[in-house]
Amino acid sequence: MTPPFVDLSFFSQYLATGLAGISYGEQPANLYEPIRYIMGLGGKRIRPLLTLLGAHLFTDDLAPVVKPALATEVFHNFTLLHDDLMDQAPLRRGQATVHEKWNPNVAILSGDVMLVRAYELFLDVPPHLLAHVLRRFSQTAAEVCEGQQWDMDFETETEVSIAQYLDMIRLKTAVLLGFALELGALLGGASLADADHLRQFGVGIGLAFQLRDDLLDVYGDAATFGKRVGGDIVSDKKTYLLLTAQAQAGAAQRATLARHIGQPVLDAEAKVQAVRAIYDELEIRPQTEALINDYFLDALQHLERVTAPEMRKQPLHQLALQLLEREQ
Amino acid sequence: MTPPFVDLSFFSQYLATGLAGISYGEQPANLYEPIRYIMGLGGKRIRPLLTLLGAHLFTDDLAPVVKPALATEVFHNFTLLHDDLMDQAPLRRGQATVHEKWNPNVAILSGDVMLVRAYELFLDVPPHLLAHVLRRFSQTAAEVCEGQQWDMDFETETEVSIAQYLDMIRLKTAVLLGFALELGALLGGASLADADHLRQFGVGIGLAFQLRDDLLDVYGDAATFGKRVGGDIVSDKKTYLLLTAQAQAGAAQRATLARHIGQPVLDAEAKVQAVRAIYDELEIRPQTEALINDYFLDALQHLERVTAPEMRKQPLHQLALQLLEREQ
Repeated sequence: MTPPFVDLSFFSQYLATGLAGISYGEQPANLYEPIRYIMGLGGKRIRPLLTLLGAHLFTDDLAPVVKPALATEVFHNFTLLHDDLMDQAPLRRGQATVHEKWNPNVAILSGDVMLVRAYELFLDVPPHLLAHVLRRFSQTAAEVCEGQQWDMDFETETEVSIAQYLDMIRLKTAVLLGFALELGALLGGASLADADHLRQFGVGIGLAFQLRDDLLDVYGDAATFGKRVGGDIVSDKKTYLLLTAQAQAGAAQRATLARHIGQPVLDAEAKVQAVRAIYDELEIRPQTEALINDYFLDALQHLERVTAPEMRKQPLHQLALQLLEREQ
Repeated sequence: MTPPFVDLSFFSQYLATGLAGISYGEQPANLYEPIRYIMGLGGKRIRPLLTLLGAHLFTDDLAPVVKPALATEVFHNFTLLHDDLMDQAPLRRGQATVHEKWNPNVAILSGDVMLVRAYELFLDVPPHLLAHVLRRFSQTAAEVCEGQQWDMDFETETEVSIAQYLDMIRLKTAVLLGFALELGALLGGASLADADHLRQFGVGIGLAFQLRDDLLDVYGDAATFGKRVGGDIVSDKKTYLLLTAQAQAGAAQRATLARHIGQPVLDAEAKVQAVRAIYDELEIRPQTEALINDYFLDALQHLERVTAPEMRKQPLHQLALQLLEREQ
C-alpha cells in the first residue's frame, strides 16, 4: 500500500518563522554577525524538522516545540562552523566559510557563543523535562565532538577497522538526528520507551544517510551530488567503501590500492578510476547498498514500534525516504 | 574592628575533592586528555570558592553546591583554553598551552567539550531553579565571549574610550566572578535581591582585580607578579593606564607616546621607561588606585546589603582583600 503523500512545507514554514525570530546578539558585530551569516546560508533544516515531526506523533501543540527544535539546528551549525575551521574548508554551501570571510579567531569565538545560544533555546522546556532533555543533549553534543575527533584521528591512523569507522559516523552524524527525534517525542509527551525507539529510528536513518553520502561520492552523478565525484578517493578518506575494499582485496588489488592510497596524487582522475575499478571488482557498491538497506529497515522497525497513530508516522516515513532519495 | 581571620582551606579542600571526582570522558584520548591537563594546571579556583562562600551565607549544606560551583571553574578553563589559542600564547601557568602541546584543532574541540561538560555540571540543580540558573549562566557565558571579542577588536581599533575599556574588562573578567557569587546565593536559598547584591559585589571585585592587574604590569615587582613587568606597554595593550594617559597628555607627552605606541619596538626597556615616565608625570598610578578603591568600596556596600549574618560574610570580605592583596 502506498501511503498518502504528505506536504512537509507546513512544518518547514513554521520552522522558518521561528528561525527568523531568534536574536543571537548585536555587539560586538564580529561576534554575532558570523552567526547570522552561517544560519542564513540555508540548508534543509532536517534536525528541527525531525523534532517537530517527532512531537507531532503525540501532540498538535507544536508552538512550545519550535525553540528547542531550533536549538538542534543552531548546534548543528556550530559544529559546521568549527569543523570547517578545523578542516580548513574554504566553502560551505557554496559560500565562503566564516574563518575565510572573517578569520580563525572569529570562527572560534562565534562558534562558542552559538553553543551557548543553543543551550539557551532549551530553557523554556517545562521544568519537569528540562534536566533530562539537557542531559541527553549534552551527551549527544559530546558524542558529536568525539566523532569529529575520531574523524581527525583516523586521517593519520594506519589501521582503522570498519567497526571503528561505523562508530565514528554514528557519533559524528547519526546521534544528533536521533536526539532531534527523541527531543520531539519527549516534548510531545511520549513515554521514554517511545522516545528511545524514535531515537533509534533517527540513528539508523543517520547511518544509512552517511553511507549513502560515501557511496554518492564514488558513484554519484556530479550534477546532482553537488561535490566533485571521487573527492573521498583523491583525499584518501577512510570511508566504508575503502576500508571494505582493503579488507577484501586480493594480493594484486591490495598492491594497486597501495600504489594509490597514501601516495602523492599525480593524476586525480586516474586515481579515482583505478580505485573505483577495484571497488567494482569487489562489488563494494552492492555491499554498501545492502548495509544501507539493513540500517534503513532496522530504523523503520523502530518507527513501527512507536505507539502513535500510523497516519501520524507518514511524514517521518516520507522524510526518511526523501533523505535516502528512494522511491516511495 | 579587625574581623577574625577565617581559614578558607576547608572550602578549598572540599572543592579539590569534588574536582578530583569529575569525569570528563576517556576516548578519544586527544579529546579528553587536554581537559584533564588544563584542569590539572592548578590555579586558585577563585570562582567555585566564591560560589561556595556565596551559598555558605545562607546554608550549611554545601554538598549540592559543589558540582555547580565547579561548572564555573570548568567554564573558566574553557575560556582560557580557547583564549590562549586565539592569543597564540605559548604558556599557561608556566606549562605549555594545549594548542602547543597538542595542536590548534585539539584545542578547539577539547574546549568545545569543556563547555558542554560545564553545562552538565549544573544539571543536578533543583528543577525549580535550573532554568533560571542556566539562563543567568548562559547570559554570563555570552558576555565573557563578548569581552574577549572586544579585547581582540581593540587591538586594531585606533579610538578606544576609557568607558569601552572598562566595559570590556567587566564582560571578560568581572561578570563571571559576579555570576559565581550569584549562583552560590541562589543555591543557598537567597532572595533574588540578595543574589543580585552578591553578583554586584563580585562584579566590583572583578573590576578592581583587573585594574590592579593592569597596574602591577607597570608598577609591580617582577618576582611577585610572575609576568614580565611592562609587558602591556611593550605590546601596546590599550589598558586603563594607557588610555587615561593618552586622554590627559599634553602636546609634548602626546608626541612622546606617539613615538612609542604602535611603532616597531627597537628597545623594549627604553619604551617601558619612557611610557612609565609619562604615567608618573600624569599621576596615572594614584588615579588608577583611586578607581580600584571606588570599585572596592562599592563592592563592599553591596556585600553589606546582603541579608545574612555578618560573621558569615567574613570569608568573602577576607577573600576580596586577598584578591586585591590589601592589608586586612
